[in-house]
Amino acid sequence: MKRLAILGSTGSIGGSALSVVDAHPDRLQVVALAAGDNATLLAQQAERYRPVVVGLSSAEAADRFRSAYPAFPGSVVVGAAGLSTVASCPQADIVLCASSGTAALEAVLAAIDGGKTIALANKEVLVMAGELVTAAAVRRGVAILPVDSEHNAIHQCLHGRAPHEVRRLILTASGGPFRGLATEELGRVRPEAALRHPTWQMGKKITIDSATLMNKGLEVIEAHWLFSVPADRIDVVIHPQSIVHSMVELTDGSVIAQMGVTDMRLPIQYACSYPDRWEATLPRLDLAQAGRLDFGPPDADRFPCLGLAYRALRGGATHAVVLNAANEVAVASFLEGSLGFTMIPALIERVMNEHEAEPVSSVGTVRRVDAWAREKATAEVRRLEWQQSGGAV
Amino acid sequence: MKRLAILGSTGSIGGSALSVVDAHPDRLQVVALAAGDNATLLAQQAERYRPVVVGLSSAEAADRFRSAYPAFPGSVVVGAAGLSTVASCPQADIVLCASSGTAALEAVLAAIDGGKTIALANKEVLVMAGELVTAAAVRRGVAILPVDSEHNAIHQCLHGRAPHEVRRLILTASGGPFRGLATEELGRVRPEAALRHPTWQMGKKITIDSATLMNKGLEVIEAHWLFSVPADRIDVVIHPQSIVHSMVELTDGSVIAQMGVTDMRLPIQYACSYPDRWEATLPRLDLAQAGRLDFGPPDADRFPCLGLAYRALRGGATHAVVLNAANEVAVASFLEGSLGFTMIPALIERVMNEHEAEPVSSVGTVRRVDAWAREKATAEVRRLEWQQSGGAV
Repeated sequence: MKRLAILGSTGSIGGSALSVVDAHPDRLQVVALAAGDNATLLAQQAERYRPVVVGLSSAEAADRFRSAYPAFPGSVVVGAAGLSTVASCPQADIVLCASSGTAALEAVLAAIDGGKTIALANKEVLVMAGELVTAAAVRRGVAILPVDSEHNAIHQCLHGRAPHEVRRLILTASGGPFRGLATEELGRVRPEAALRHPTWQMGKKITIDSATLMNKGLEVIEAHWLFSVPADRIDVVIHPQSIVHSMVELTDGSVIAQMGVTDMRLPIQYACSYPDRWEATLPRLDLAQAGRLDFGPPDADRFPCLGLAYRALRGGATHAVVLNAANEVAVASFLEGSLGFTMIPALIERVMNEHEAEPVSSVGTVRRVDAWAREKATAEVRRLEWQQSGGAV
Repeated sequence: MKRLAILGSTGSIGGSALSVVDAHPDRLQVVALAAGDNATLLAQQAERYRPVVVGLSSAEAADRFRSAYPAFPGSVVVGAAGLSTVASCPQADIVLCASSGTAALEAVLAAIDGGKTIALANKEVLVMAGELVTAAAVRRGVAILPVDSEHNAIHQCLHGRAPHEVRRLILTASGGPFRGLATEELGRVRPEAALRHPTWQMGKKITIDSATLMNKGLEVIEAHWLFSVPADRIDVVIHPQSIVHSMVELTDGSVIAQMGVTDMRLPIQYACSYPDRWEATLPRLDLAQAGRLDFGPPDADRFPCLGLAYRALRGGATHAVVLNAANEVAVASFLEGSLGFTMIPALIERVMNEHEAEPVSSVGTVRRVDAWAREKATAEVRRLEWQQSGGAV
């Protein structure tokens, strides 16, 4: 029996994780749950799975949780410190980190410190602090198992092979909904259109990141940290059907690919079962029925975010912190209608150009640079709005 | 340094194997070579690689070898017994069995008996006597590494995974040159057209087998013996580009595929390097440039050979011996122009229907049943010719 803590249990990944638990009641047990402010759903989950501890983002949300489930026998913790308490809960063997954003960083470090296996579904943790997190995991002898379908695929392709057998990692990208659009058409793209992802149902932020290819850029950075492969040996190929989840080219020229249906329960279960593999009754991939898989090169000119991510990875230090923070501000501004689609990379690039990088020596450094980049990016969005409304530069 | 014996060194696979040796002079050394009757080429190979023993099919060919290379310091052996001598040569670590047909069976058993690793590029050995050969290999603790690109792909996909993780094997088939033809068009197919294979350059027999899908049927039988997977967990999918060499579906629904360029040096090198993997400077697979991979179900009605192979595998015992022998006679008759393309499966089926199976208890049984099936098949071809020429049935 593996005992599971889920950070972000009320989100989409969290829900998939709970259905993996439902499918394997003899193998998985939920011992801790953390959510943001969806106290109602968390209370339902707590009634069903009986965790020893639950975490919520605020005291107000905790109150709502207690009202919804007054008889809850476990502890209720709150805020960032609460998230770390859930992550390091002594009863857990595996911590699934599915809470989005930067808040998860300390929690993941706490889980590593507690010797937990990390099932990582959060991008920012490795993008911002890959160096800190992977060093901590190595020190503590803890495995970080990727839940993101691309990295999970690479983990499966690498399994049983030595590092010297690997020539390069090849991440597949659906290319997003605007794969075929010309640059001038991209300039006119509205948030509603960008939110229609062709193959995966995901949150708003990651859907926009898919449309700009920033999502793939962040994944390149993550892949670097997860698999210790340098930027020039990580490639991206566009594959609209999202059936090949990613690939590894080996030194003799063989390419090993992992394919499957687009269902997050598959990588979540893999991370929970690893190094074993369990039966799953998910829909099966039928290639003969799928009929056709397409592949093509990513267009660096129309989708500059991918290049910016490579630049941040090659630059090292805090460059990726700035990339990530500026991108979050840019995407939020795009979703609010205050920034054009093609201005997303332009904004990020401006902020990156102003950044003086420093080594990622502590979480404090990450937080400080993150705050700086958000401030810069926000100021830049305001400046652009002012300009567009006819104001002087 | 691994020391290599090559059975069939003057053929296409043999030539590829020697270029793998050329690419890795510090890792591979040729110690024994066997050919059919191409004494001239074998003499050139012997001058270059200095094996301690060479084998030829006949005393006459051996004489030609000695004339071509009078100073050869090693031994020259002849015939089936000679082939076994080469295969069990004490200096060899790995025996690459690339000689075609049934003659290789005793040689492979001799190599297993000598404790050699078997790199197997011959189909008939496992199709006819899979039970004997795999049992001998298990007894002697010898590995059989498949060189056929499909089985080699499956070997790579299975590496590092436990048997209970495997749901099914999926062999890809190019579908041959007649994939799109209707049954009545298939009836008019001429040998010249059948010999034009879309993706691989191969010998005549195997090219016709690709066109009838019998090649894939024989591979299903081989896969059963190589990987201990029953017939109902081995599937075939048509994939015209031959880029995905084969796949394995795991119990959680993940599909692991091995892809690569269509170059036999890749699987040969893999078999030589295994369990390690060496660098190769072969052309690299560029999926973005390849652009498109197609998949579809095989058509059992138009290509009945595949179904006959499954029937032989499910029947067990000597059924596959009959399948293989009748197919060889049928293909030879087709190439001579004395049997129509769609009559190939019809002929095999008639011979199979007349066969009373017995356990594959010895090489003697295999040889006897093989001879019986060839005789039956030949008689059946004559009967059909007689019929067609207007004779009475």
